[in-house]
Amino acid sequence: MNLILLSPDDIGADHYARITDTRRLKHLLEVHRASAGENFSVGIQGGNMGKAELVELSSEQAVFSLNSLEELPPPPLPVHLVLALPRPRMLARTLEHVTTLGVKEITLLHTKRVEKSYWQSPELRPEKIYQHLILGLEQAKDTLLPTVHLRKGFRPFIEEQLPALLAKGRGLLAHPGMPHACPRGISDKTLLLVGPEGGFIDWEVEQLLTAGCEGMHLGPRILRVETAVTALLSRLF
Amino acid sequence: MNLILLSPDDIGADHYARITDTRRLKHLLEVHRASAGENFSVGIQGGNMGKAELVELSSEQAVFSLNSLEELPPPPLPVHLVLALPRPRMLARTLEHVTTLGVKEITLLHTKRVEKSYWQSPELRPEKIYQHLILGLEQAKDTLLPTVHLRKGFRPFIEEQLPALLAKGRGLLAHPGMPHACPRGISDKTLLLVGPEGGFIDWEVEQLLTAGCEGMHLGPRILRVETAVTALLSRLF
Repeated sequence: MNLILLSPDDIGADHYARITDTRRLKHLLEVHRASAGENFSVGIQGGNMGKAELVELSSEQAVFSLNSLEELPPPPLPVHLVLALPRPRMLARTLEHVTTLGVKEITLLHTKRVEKSYWQSPELRPEKIYQHLILGLEQAKDTLLPTVHLRKGFRPFIEEQLPALLAKGRGLLAHPGMPHACPRGISDKTLLLVGPEGGFIDWEVEQLLTAGCEGMHLGPRILRVETAVTALLSRLF
Repeated sequence: MNLILLSPDDIGADHYARITDTRRLKHLLEVHRASAGENFSVGIQGGNMGKAELVELSSEQAVFSLNSLEELPPPPLPVHLVLALPRPRMLARTLEHVTTLGVKEITLLHTKRVEKSYWQSPELRPEKIYQHLILGLEQAKDTLLPTVHLRKGFRPFIEEQLPALLAKGRGLLAHPGMPHACPRGISDKTLLLVGPEGGFIDWEVEQLLTAGCEGMHLGPRILRVETAVTALLSRLF
């Protein structure tokens, strides 16, 4: 928790913020070993960041005095990540990684090699997804919550959503064996598509290329999804 | 297990390889649902890779017929990674990530902000480290086992090992707030130094810069060690 991220619920009309949930209180007490009078990095969800004084701390609540928070959150990556739904534990970690790296639009997509049971996982409940995004923001020191879309049909995604998404920017399909290497240091608005463990099937690759995506690869090594996504984002932007 | 990695112990004098350990047998039976007559990607530790026929499979052993294995493993990254010892679970995942990405020399270093108890973790036992490296190679389809060095003293490392390491190549210190951004797409032989959660302390940074390392940063976001290491390797090479 490098940043104490305040939700609208935490903030009173009196310029004080009150934290009452166990997770953050425990972190303040046990990890930061905080005490009243100290300053902490705080940020308001969707807004600015800065230092705030802890004016009260008990096992029931932490109260911060909010003065002017003038620091902007770090710039987002210009990317919409379309990721074949990974298995639940990998999903949890990947959501945190990509949030930390600055991704703000995430689509989780069904593809042929995604196990259907993954769509039933408790990790896909909105409150679980929210929790992973918050952990990513607290780690990175960022206040802008990503949006996560769930798309349980590949064909409807290709037919109904992909054309509009590609109209907004460059489509990059990460897939082993594509002829071009992943570009480096681009600043284009990008739709980045990443397949599941085992990859997109040939038909899916064809559909994506026909729709206008550029295929590219990360080299001969087969990376886990969570490693691949971090490696792609870091090389691209 | 994208590659069945054969150790010298697995290989007989008769051009057959026999696998008898539960982990790999279970994977062949339950994940690959393998049966005799099928071909699998195999590789010999430290040697070549290729296809081999599974000639026998039972709950006791899998026997592969080894013909000529003519494929070379993918090229290693030209980097020696010096990493402040992360906490045990993060260490396990980070060893797998960096092995998958092609790192062949890893030094785990003590620094001021590394908790001393981490050095007592069972994750540092040679057989546990070996297991993580093997999992990384099986994932990436690689046969070249990384070497892992443990350095429990920062000052002895700086005084006794660092000069010789820097004589072999470029030293890059990844640290927030350094004036230069992480370079992209280099091919230099590189010593890459990454601090612990919370970073190197100022004195450590000074020592490393004085010894000839170049400081560089990955931007304003604070990444977890495992995310940072993958992001650095992918951007650098």
